[in-house]
Amino acid sequence: MTASEKLEKKFDKNYHICVGLDTDINKIPKHLLSEKNPVLEFNKMIVESTAEFAACYKINFAFYERFGAKGFDSLAQTLELIPKEIFVIADAKRGDIGNTSEMYAKAVFDELAFDSITLHPYMGSDSLQPFLDYKEKLNFILALTSNKGAADFEKQQLADGRFLFQHVIEKVNKWNVNKNCGIVFGATNIDELKENISSFGDLVVLLPGVGAQGGSLEEVAASFNQHKNKNYLVNISRALLYCNDSKDFGKQVTELIKSYNQSVFNMSH
Amino acid sequence: MTASEKLEKKFDKNYHICVGLDTDINKIPKHLLSEKNPVLEFNKMIVESTAEFAACYKINFAFYERFGAKGFDSLAQTLELIPKEIFVIADAKRGDIGNTSEMYAKAVFDELAFDSITLHPYMGSDSLQPFLDYKEKLNFILALTSNKGAADFEKQQLADGRFLFQHVIEKVNKWNVNKNCGIVFGATNIDELKENISSFGDLVVLLPGVGAQGGSLEEVAASFNQHKNKNYLVNISRALLYCNDSKDFGKQVTELIKSYNQSVFNMSH
Repeated sequence: MTASEKLEKKFDKNYHICVGLDTDINKIPKHLLSEKNPVLEFNKMIVESTAEFAACYKINFAFYERFGAKGFDSLAQTLELIPKEIFVIADAKRGDIGNTSEMYAKAVFDELAFDSITLHPYMGSDSLQPFLDYKEKLNFILALTSNKGAADFEKQQLADGRFLFQHVIEKVNKWNVNKNCGIVFGATNIDELKENISSFGDLVVLLPGVGAQGGSLEEVAASFNQHKNKNYLVNISRALLYCNDSKDFGKQVTELIKSYNQSVFNMSH
Repeated sequence: MTASEKLEKKFDKNYHICVGLDTDINKIPKHLLSEKNPVLEFNKMIVESTAEFAACYKINFAFYERFGAKGFDSLAQTLELIPKEIFVIADAKRGDIGNTSEMYAKAVFDELAFDSITLHPYMGSDSLQPFLDYKEKLNFILALTSNKGAADFEKQQLADGRFLFQHVIEKVNKWNVNKNCGIVFGATNIDELKENISSFGDLVVLLPGVGAQGGSLEEVAASFNQHKNKNYLVNISRALLYCNDSKDFGKQVTELIKSYNQSVFNMSH
């Protein structure tokens, strides 16, 4: 099953929630701290509580790299916890000159067997090509991000009147010859989402920013539904992961992701 | 000694070569392949052969991450091979929303104790702030890179007539309140270097692209000298590391880095 096929199965069921495993040892329920590997134990509970209802998972590399080689082991073990038929994104935001990007692509796609990765566009096409050469994977390129700093460069107006992020979206559409590209578009930019959604074409859209950052799941779902576009993933990390700190937090997490799916469903009908 | 102080000592000696440890197991001398950890053994030889003459080292994360947790161990061990008084750059090209960048900063500055890191500007100021909060480190932000893809976005003209990379340089100058910022400027862009060098201010400039990518060490050194600017590092990786594959390749590497220093010296007098 290719990466895109895994996702399509979920989209057909109207599942669009990406569970972001930004696991922070300082935020997980305290009773897990006595476990040998608290982060891994927490991730296991989250995956078990959400696998039936999630469209995909996203593992945020920073939260694992923070602990060096040991963290890298936790990351690999977390990936193994996720059922093989579910799409998993390496949220690594990489991008470098060709021979270096080739090494990053090998790390994420060969060594770790992720389905997908997030990438910085700044260095241009040849910095992304080594990732795009993996035809059965899906590459999410940053277009407009969810943070305030998006105004510094991403929202800069170009000489031809377009904004930089619009130019990125146009380029990614051109690079999408193997249908293995997507974009990252922050859910906090709801006006820009509505204005630009018709330019997304076949690109799968990953939308961070719902929950702790203030974006609205309902508004995102309504916008995509209005354009009969099923190709979107709304990432939720902190708001879901740390919704409860009791011993049976897993049940609360299950209820919460089911309520997210219900919200998406309500907006689509 | 702060990161900047380590560099100043080298600049005062007219040392400007950054040795890039982009170590590729497929390119190192064959006799090392029987060692327990060939990459580490090679790096040890390179560091021993260059420590007296290098301005700094740059470790390219991709070449280590490629081997997962084991690679991460090699990276940490490589860092330990380098004498503490020499400045070392984590060439990791990171950048993410605030709480994630904070984790990357901890990984590179606390867990691994690098002096410096390379960063993507695309996501803007709040994505860089967690790195800038480390006042005694040095943060190299990508401005104009050495690859062809630099034309896609970095060289895009903005509505006000400037190019995107010029806008990045202006912003980085503003963010440099703690004198802990630098920029990456590809040595392959020699015309742009000459045109923009007076806008670099106090920023330390890291210039990749000399050697395998075609940039000229002499032209770079001459340009900086003409502007009485000592704050630059010319990275050389492949051309130096793999200049010889005999058993005493170390001697050749020493001769080559000495000849680079001589070239820089000749251009400065």
